[in-house]
Amino acid sequence: MSGMTEFSRRVEQVSISGIREVFEAAGEDAINLGLGQPDFPTPEHAREGAIEAIRAGKADEYTSNKGTESLREAIAGRYAADTALEVDPNDVIATAGGSEALHIALEAHVDPGEEVVFPDPGFVSYEALTHIASGEPVPVSLRDDLTMAPEAVEDAITDETAAFVVNSPANPTGAVQSPEDMREFARIADEHDVLCISDEMYEQIVFEGEHRSPAEFAETDNVVVVNGCSKTYSMTGWRLGWVAASERRIERMLRVHQYAQACASAPAQYAAEAALRGPQDPVDEMTAAFEERRDVLLDGLESMGLDVPTPQGAFYAMPEVPEGWVDAVIDRGVVVVPGDAFGEHGAGYARISYAASLDDIETALDAMREATRAVQ
Amino acid sequence: MSGMTEFSRRVEQVSISGIREVFEAAGEDAINLGLGQPDFPTPEHAREGAIEAIRAGKADEYTSNKGTESLREAIAGRYAADTALEVDPNDVIATAGGSEALHIALEAHVDPGEEVVFPDPGFVSYEALTHIASGEPVPVSLRDDLTMAPEAVEDAITDETAAFVVNSPANPTGAVQSPEDMREFARIADEHDVLCISDEMYEQIVFEGEHRSPAEFAETDNVVVVNGCSKTYSMTGWRLGWVAASERRIERMLRVHQYAQACASAPAQYAAEAALRGPQDPVDEMTAAFEERRDVLLDGLESMGLDVPTPQGAFYAMPEVPEGWVDAVIDRGVVVVPGDAFGEHGAGYARISYAASLDDIETALDAMREATRAVQ
Repeated sequence: MSGMTEFSRRVEQVSISGIREVFEAAGEDAINLGLGQPDFPTPEHAREGAIEAIRAGKADEYTSNKGTESLREAIAGRYAADTALEVDPNDVIATAGGSEALHIALEAHVDPGEEVVFPDPGFVSYEALTHIASGEPVPVSLRDDLTMAPEAVEDAITDETAAFVVNSPANPTGAVQSPEDMREFARIADEHDVLCISDEMYEQIVFEGEHRSPAEFAETDNVVVVNGCSKTYSMTGWRLGWVAASERRIERMLRVHQYAQACASAPAQYAAEAALRGPQDPVDEMTAAFEERRDVLLDGLESMGLDVPTPQGAFYAMPEVPEGWVDAVIDRGVVVVPGDAFGEHGAGYARISYAASLDDIETALDAMREATRAVQ
Repeated sequence: MSGMTEFSRRVEQVSISGIREVFEAAGEDAINLGLGQPDFPTPEHAREGAIEAIRAGKADEYTSNKGTESLREAIAGRYAADTALEVDPNDVIATAGGSEALHIALEAHVDPGEEVVFPDPGFVSYEALTHIASGEPVPVSLRDDLTMAPEAVEDAITDETAAFVVNSPANPTGAVQSPEDMREFARIADEHDVLCISDEMYEQIVFEGEHRSPAEFAETDNVVVVNGCSKTYSMTGWRLGWVAASERRIERMLRVHQYAQACASAPAQYAAEAALRGPQDPVDEMTAAFEERRDVLLDGLESMGLDVPTPQGAFYAMPEVPEGWVDAVIDRGVVVVPGDAFGEHGAGYARISYAASLDDIETALDAMREATRAVQ
C-alpha cells in the first residue's frame, strides 16, 4: 500500500511521557502523588482579571506577538520587586507556559546534531525538546544531594554543545542550587560561549536556601531565563510562561513564537497580569503549605528507613527506593512516578509530588510503609 | 568578547513578517485593511463558556494533552453536522490556533532538508514554519484566478518532498479551490506518497463555490486537516485550533504538542466548545457581512480599472496594482499589504482585508482612487 509517508526522525526519537503510563496503571480512586501541578486554585483576582478582559472584549483579538505591553511590564515589575534581576519589558516574550518557552529557546539556539546538556534525573521535556530541535541530548548525573554540579556540566561541554539547562528549584528532585553554583553556571556560559537555559518555573517555591538566577551573574548575554505563572499561581491549565533574555536572543526566539504560536492566549495574559500585579499572599500560603507537607512526607519516608535528599523547593521529594517499591505503592492505590521516567540516573528513585492534602499524604504514607515492608 | 553564541540556522532563515513593517509605516489614525482577523466580537455564548469554566475552577489545571474530550467531541460533532468528513474525537489535537497546528504537522513530518510545497502568494507561515522545521520551502505560483493548480503541485514534487500545503479558502487571495482540485490534491497525496496539509481555517467563510476537504477524497491517510476557531468565531486572541488526522499521525504530532505546549489554554478550550456547540448564526451573519463588503470593495476597485480575481471566500481581495500603488495608498492613511509579503509571485498585487466596516471601506476606496490616479 502506498500512503505510508514517513515521520520525521525528530519525532521518532521522542516517546510519549512515561508518567502518563503510570497514571493509567492506577485506578480512578488512587491518591495521585504523580502530578506536576499545585492542588490550589488559581487566585481569585487572576481569574477575575481574565473575566473582566473577556467581558470588555479585550481578549478576542491577537495581542502583540510578545504579549501585551502591560503584561510584560507586570513581569518586569515582579523581577524588580522580588529579585536582583533587571528585566526590560521589551526583552520578554509571553509564551504558552514554560513548555513553549523551553521550545523556542532550543529552536532558536540548537542546530541539528548539536548537543544540549541537562540534569538526569531531570524534567522530561529537556530530552524531548532537544530531540524536537534535532539536537543531541547529553544528560549529566547529579550529586548525592540531587543538585547538578557545575563541574559535571563543564566536563560534558564539547565543541558541539549549544546549550545547557539549569533547573532550580528542580523537578523531579526538589533540589535548589546554591548561589555559588549559579555563579559557576554563569561563568561556564560566559567562558565556554554556550547558552545557559535557566528554567526557573519553581522560583517562588523555596523553603530553604535562596534562589538566584545565573542571569544575575553572567557577564555575557548567554543566559535565557524561563519562568511563568503555572506553578507560582497554580495556573497550569492557562498556559502562560515567558522567556527573558537579551534583545537579540528575544528577536530570534520571537521568530519561532510568532509563527508557531502567534501570541499567548489573550485571556491567560490578562489572568497572568492580574496574578503578577495583585496580592502575593496566595504564593506565600501555598509555599507554607508545601513546606508543612514536605516535612510530614520526609518524616514518614525516613521513618521507613528510606534515604531522601531534603528537597528545598518545588513540591517533589525523591527518595531512594528498593527494587519493586514503585509498583508495590501503585498496587496499594497511590500513584508515584518511577525515577527512571526522568532519565537513566533516576533509576532506584521515585518522584513523590506533595501537591496533595495532608490527609492524602498521611494515607499515602501508610501505603508506602506497607509497600516498603513488602519489598524488603 | 566571548558570549556571542550563534543562533540556529533555522531561525536565521526566518524573517519577522513584512506585514508588521507595513503597520508600523502607517499612522495611528490609519484605516487598517491589513489585518488577518475578523472585526467581529467573539460570540457572547463562547465568552460565557470560558467564564463559566473559569468560575467553576475547571480552567486552572492541565487538560488532557489533546484537549478535553468534550471539546474534541464538539469538533467531531461539527464535522458530522456540516461536512462530509468523518472525524473521530480521538483523532484530534486541540492546538494554540492554526499556527501551532501547522507547526506540529510540519515538525512531525518534515526532516531537515526535505521539501515543502506551498502556494505563492500564500500565508506567510508556510515558508517560516518550513524553515523552522529545517525544511526547504518550494513555493509554487498560482493560476490567473489565484487558485493553486494541482498540476503545479505535482510538477513541484520530487523525491525530497515531504509535504504540500493546500489552503482554501485562501489567505491572502480569497480564492476557493474547486471540489475537482481538492480531489486531485488527494490523488497526488495518495499516488506520490507525500503528505497533504490542508489548511482549512477559513472553511466557513465561503460566498460562492463549495468547500470540500482533500481528506474526503484521499484513499490513504496522507491528509492532515488544520482548522480552528480563530476566523470562524472571531477568536484569534484565544488561540484555539486543531489538527485532525489518522491515529498514527495524531500520535506523532502529539509528541511535539505534548512537550512544546502541554495543552491548549483551558479557558480557550471551553470558549471553543461553547462556540462549536452553540448557535451558528454569528458565523452566518459574519459571512453575509463579508460578502456585502467584498461586493462593495470589488466594485470600487474595478471602477478604478484594477483587475481583481473575484475572491470566493475568506475576507481578502488581491487586486493587481500598478508600481507604487501600495505606498501611495499607505501615504493616504489606508493600510494594505504589498503582495510580495506573501511570496515572490505576489509582487504586483496587494492584499486588502475587508474585515472592516463598510464606512471604512468606502473611505479607503476614496484613498485608493486617489492613489491609483497618482501612480498611473
